[in-house]
Amino acid sequence: MSDLADEIVAMDLQRAFSDVERASVYRAIYARRDMRHFCGGEVSAEVLKRILEAGHAAPSVGFMQPWRFIRIADKGLRSRLTDVVSAESKRTAEALGGRKAEFLKLKVEGMRECAELIAVVQAPDDGSIFGRRTMPEEMVVCSIACAIQNMWLAARAENLGMGWVSIFEPSEVASILKCPEGAKPLALLCLGPVREFYRKPMLQQENWREHLPLRDVLFEDGYGA
Amino acid sequence: MSDLADEIVAMDLQRAFSDVERASVYRAIYARRDMRHFCGGEVSAEVLKRILEAGHAAPSVGFMQPWRFIRIADKGLRSRLTDVVSAESKRTAEALGGRKAEFLKLKVEGMRECAELIAVVQAPDDGSIFGRRTMPEEMVVCSIACAIQNMWLAARAENLGMGWVSIFEPSEVASILKCPEGAKPLALLCLGPVREFYRKPMLQQENWREHLPLRDVLFEDGYGA
Repeated sequence: MSDLADEIVAMDLQRAFSDVERASVYRAIYARRDMRHFCGGEVSAEVLKRILEAGHAAPSVGFMQPWRFIRIADKGLRSRLTDVVSAESKRTAEALGGRKAEFLKLKVEGMRECAELIAVVQAPDDGSIFGRRTMPEEMVVCSIACAIQNMWLAARAENLGMGWVSIFEPSEVASILKCPEGAKPLALLCLGPVREFYRKPMLQQENWREHLPLRDVLFEDGYGA
Repeated sequence: MSDLADEIVAMDLQRAFSDVERASVYRAIYARRDMRHFCGGEVSAEVLKRILEAGHAAPSVGFMQPWRFIRIADKGLRSRLTDVVSAESKRTAEALGGRKAEFLKLKVEGMRECAELIAVVQAPDDGSIFGRRTMPEEMVVCSIACAIQNMWLAARAENLGMGWVSIFEPSEVASILKCPEGAKPLALLCLGPVREFYRKPMLQQENWREHLPLRDVLFEDGYGA
């Protein structure tokens, strides 16, 4: 565990969250944005480590810890990954048909401008059965997404933006990052300083899609009920 | 958006997180546990709504918002779902072979004792392409896991425990909850007051598996590098 984790646990794991602490957690949840606009700058090694440790503190099915983080330090490598995303953006635009023009107006990644780029890769299956006998693939993927959500909230609390880019062909990213057989890239995370956070989720702000009211996604005792 | 979300955005979305706010977010991340031990009690309607809204504030690929929350209010229904989990626990124990006895000593769900039980179901595919042309299933599942992680952290900030039960046959849960074709249950969330939070993740505490050092999951410029 990290020093921060040790400190928090030593400090008193059981102590109740105060109103101020609770409000801070909700603030991170509501003020977090999936960012595509970055302004260069840098993320200190200390802050980056805190964000990565936050990801690594996520829950995982059967305690598998199936996430692998690859920090992209090499500029050539970043450029090759950006090309993979550009190529898939074009294919996505074509596949969207009637909404192609609208899609092309959106900024869908900030890979050239972000301070740090981190690939998140699913490790090859280690054969774990606990908690995933019936949903082996889904539960590993869920664990990795929980780690990324932790990083997103930690980044916001560090006053940094983060964006999850998933517009890529995973086999191409796997090849560039020399992933072993069975490993699967799930995210290219753009991380770094931003000029401002979107007032609403970008795709809502840009009228790509509406935010559903809670009542549309909440049922009682049966689906749709 | 919820009142809380409106309040936070109105309050100043751009304002930097203070040290205290940042520490509170990390505290939730490190003090969160995947709980299986609950002590009955209840969750007020107001607190439950805040936790559900926190889930609904998660990011989602193409802003799909593919999560559906089903609150289980009926006792008979809770009992039937618990039976489904018990049956799969037995099958999991058999599949574990050499670790069967060790597995059977663990408490793997708190479905009878938790104050609230919430099923989280993946909505039928709506045909969205944005951000998931190459990974259609993974990205929907990731979005739902981000929502659940938000709920987990919100629950901890509300001083409540939450546990994600995934030991079930999804088709059986889908049938009990009258899910439409294409909808898929991913989680049975146990939520409520707990006597205490595990000092370490339960599977680590019970020596099921070790926590990896960060260096084992962090690479630079290539997998394993």
